[in-house]
Amino acid sequence: MALANRDKPEDWTLLMLRIASFLVTASATIVMALNKETKTLVVATIGSNPVTATLTAKFQYDPAFVFFVVANGITSLHNLLMIVVDLFRHKFNERGICLVMIPIFDMLIVALAAAGDGAATFIAELGKNGNSHARWNKICDKFGPYCDRGGVALIASFIGLGLLLVITGLSIIKLQTKPKPSNDVSVP
Amino acid sequence: MALANRDKPEDWTLLMLRIASFLVTASATIVMALNKETKTLVVATIGSNPVTATLTAKFQYDPAFVFFVVANGITSLHNLLMIVVDLFRHKFNERGICLVMIPIFDMLIVALAAAGDGAATFIAELGKNGNSHARWNKICDKFGPYCDRGGVALIASFIGLGLLLVITGLSIIKLQTKPKPSNDVSVP
Repeated sequence: MALANRDKPEDWTLLMLRIASFLVTASATIVMALNKETKTLVVATIGSNPVTATLTAKFQYDPAFVFFVVANGITSLHNLLMIVVDLFRHKFNERGICLVMIPIFDMLIVALAAAGDGAATFIAELGKNGNSHARWNKICDKFGPYCDRGGVALIASFIGLGLLLVITGLSIIKLQTKPKPSNDVSVP
Repeated sequence: MALANRDKPEDWTLLMLRIASFLVTASATIVMALNKETKTLVVATIGSNPVTATLTAKFQYDPAFVFFVVANGITSLHNLLMIVVDLFRHKFNERGICLVMIPIFDMLIVALAAAGDGAATFIAELGKNGNSHARWNKICDKFGPYCDRGGVALIASFIGLGLLLVITGLSIIKLQTKPKPSNDVSVP
């Protein structure tokens, strides 16, 4: 069994962190991708008759949120792939490629996830507070639950990014301390 | 001399990449930090007299651009510090800490720089195109040169981030291939 080769505590720690990172980034992706709110507002009154307009807020309306969903989706898939690689690492380690490529791919994904988080955070901040200089009005006073769900997705994504930073740091340290992979062939 | 210890071609490549990354991220910081445009616009006409208003666009007006300047400033300082560490690495390598800490710090800075770039890019996109759903009007039609300079800062910052990704990747590979630092004490 692949799991039987996992004899060191740090291997278990890395796998658990990776699973946690996958779960929170996947949750962030799903929460943001399903984020939609429709609201009917009174925009004017003619005589005593209110004139209403139905407004919808959804993540697709802002490129930053679309990028956030794509970035977090790719981060989740990367985490899932790395879990699979970790479970079958004895097959990859024989080739000696795996160990050095994992932190490099992790780092690229860190850059992508951080860019997505940065973009979505500052657009969310704009939605919450507006910007009087640019005359961009806040929208969270009208779409409270939409903004709350977006906030939850952001927090989850930041936790996932933090975990990924820890994982990459540990992988780099492991690279320094571990003997060369050619001496590390496991029996399946 | 510290430079005399640099006998391998990849050491020179890393140092050159680091200097290039420092120069472009420092340029991005400066260009964005100095980005300001004041314009007098006709906002109304009373009779035949135009009513004007003086509007100013500057980076401090948007939190994303402030974050971009801070992130790129820290990235520049990190690059500068790493250049110093690289020039005097024989002193650090004796302790065996340096080699593994460099890619870890680099990765944290990659996350910071990527978040800054993501934030500024999507706010810049909003300034350029607006967002009809949120009723956020574009501002680049009024502040063209301001937006152009912001674009230059963004491009420079992305080049700096790309170089940092290459540097971190190479540092990780170096970690895998290099003998342990305890055997690598240089004579100053």
